[in-house]
Amino acid sequence: MKDKFYTYIQELQDTISNKLAAVDGVATFKEDIWERPEGGGGRTRVIENGAVFEKGGVNISGVHGELPDSMQKYFGVEDANFFACGLSLVLHPKNPMVPTVHANWRYFEMYDKEGNIVDQWFGGGQDLTPYYLFYEDATHFHTICKTACDKHNPEFYAKYKARCDEYFWNAHRNEARGIGGLFFDYCKATESMSMQDWYNYVTEVGNSFLECYVPIVEKRKDLPYTKEQRDWQEIRRGRYVEFNLVHDKGTLFGLKTNGRIESILMSLPPHVQWVYDHNPIEDSEEDNLLQVLKTPKEWV
Amino acid sequence: MKDKFYTYIQELQDTISNKLAAVDGVATFKEDIWERPEGGGGRTRVIENGAVFEKGGVNISGVHGELPDSMQKYFGVEDANFFACGLSLVLHPKNPMVPTVHANWRYFEMYDKEGNIVDQWFGGGQDLTPYYLFYEDATHFHTICKTACDKHNPEFYAKYKARCDEYFWNAHRNEARGIGGLFFDYCKATESMSMQDWYNYVTEVGNSFLECYVPIVEKRKDLPYTKEQRDWQEIRRGRYVEFNLVHDKGTLFGLKTNGRIESILMSLPPHVQWVYDHNPIEDSEEDNLLQVLKTPKEWV
Repeated sequence: MKDKFYTYIQELQDTISNKLAAVDGVATFKEDIWERPEGGGGRTRVIENGAVFEKGGVNISGVHGELPDSMQKYFGVEDANFFACGLSLVLHPKNPMVPTVHANWRYFEMYDKEGNIVDQWFGGGQDLTPYYLFYEDATHFHTICKTACDKHNPEFYAKYKARCDEYFWNAHRNEARGIGGLFFDYCKATESMSMQDWYNYVTEVGNSFLECYVPIVEKRKDLPYTKEQRDWQEIRRGRYVEFNLVHDKGTLFGLKTNGRIESILMSLPPHVQWVYDHNPIEDSEEDNLLQVLKTPKEWV
Repeated sequence: MKDKFYTYIQELQDTISNKLAAVDGVATFKEDIWERPEGGGGRTRVIENGAVFEKGGVNISGVHGELPDSMQKYFGVEDANFFACGLSLVLHPKNPMVPTVHANWRYFEMYDKEGNIVDQWFGGGQDLTPYYLFYEDATHFHTICKTACDKHNPEFYAKYKARCDEYFWNAHRNEARGIGGLFFDYCKATESMSMQDWYNYVTEVGNSFLECYVPIVEKRKDLPYTKEQRDWQEIRRGRYVEFNLVHDKGTLFGLKTNGRIESILMSLPPHVQWVYDHNPIEDSEEDNLLQVLKTPKEWV
């Protein structure tokens, strides 16, 4: 399973980065191959200063070895080895009318001292963070997510959409990071879902990503915008940074376990502003976004 | 003691904000008086878009009531009430030749159910974060810190300088946030230092702040700088954000205990950049700063 999924994310990284570079038309992805001293490594691909994408990364990694102490504590195990691989992407477009997107699909195996698999699971999801809210874009993104889910289980969309809203909650601001999508974790074999079934589901979601996002980019990337709208985007990017550095388990885990810092923090936006006590004008488009982020909505 | 120290920080807030507004010459401090629903409140003073200070705050607060659960756990106590007050300041200058500065002086009391003081202590410090390193500025800042310390105990400077280097360590980057200064905490009454002695020491440090910082501002504020130097400042400000959101106990404590978000996060810089895998040219001034930040130096 681990080889099959790693091959899958390698191919998906190619598919996604090729398509995004084509959409951008100006910038290309810069590739960094890195090795983890304790075992494994990754292929980081970063795009910067494009016509469409101001900054973004589509990264894969596959790491293995002894489970770090902090993770042994987290999982309540001892003397465990592990293998983990996944694809993580974040794209910060230049035009504030184009939303930021994040996605991640991952697979984890844990072993005992003899090398037997004692646990294995999939996780992942994809979510959208608009600066200006086009309802049809939100509905489009969620509809594609739902379609991918419905092929596997009619309950998955509602369940993983709710988990996404819960996970990407900027608690100290009492607002969502964005308008959500899907989030699932610890997807393990059950009577009704084998690991192969989960593989089929997770790759279905992975394969749906470009259809979720690219039509929105194409529709909004050439819209005109003002300096004030750009400032708003940079202020909202500040909230994105706050979420990733204060609340995001994946980021904090990476920072505290000696992960490759530049690959982890490629998720941070290129230009960001913090303005003291910034509040948009009531009933403005900016204010409308904030109202929507206060209470997660049903989009489909 | 609490009334005396609160009166002191009220006056110090006036002294510092008046002086800094005069140094700026263009912007003034905007004041927000706020109340904490559970008891107490604060006076936040923020300066933005000045001639010298791009963003900064000089805030005081005095809060009291039941000790929040997370703090009871932290201190290993039950059913405790508390009073805490302090002055916190951060200044982000526009000119990259002028360093960012942070300072904080605080006093804490803990009570049992009957209202008896069961514990009390002072804490605080002041530290400098340059973007371009002028050795004479670093030496000036530390010399004034040392002079304030030496009046009270010949060992304080070395001890609290070392604690500052330890505390403001951006572990995931393996570098210091800046060039340090002083950091002390849990300063409690002992045979040799009464609470009044600690009050005298902490106010001595508080009173030294303007002498530490203002001469550096005056010397550097009109130096010319390039767009590239400004970019470097914004990239380094990203490290400042990373420290405050990932490592700073005060910030995280505030965010997780329902503090006034805008007063806590006034510490974040106005314009910030994250560039993937940015590395300055070897032996450049930017590289020189990084080398110094890798190993805390003795400045006096």
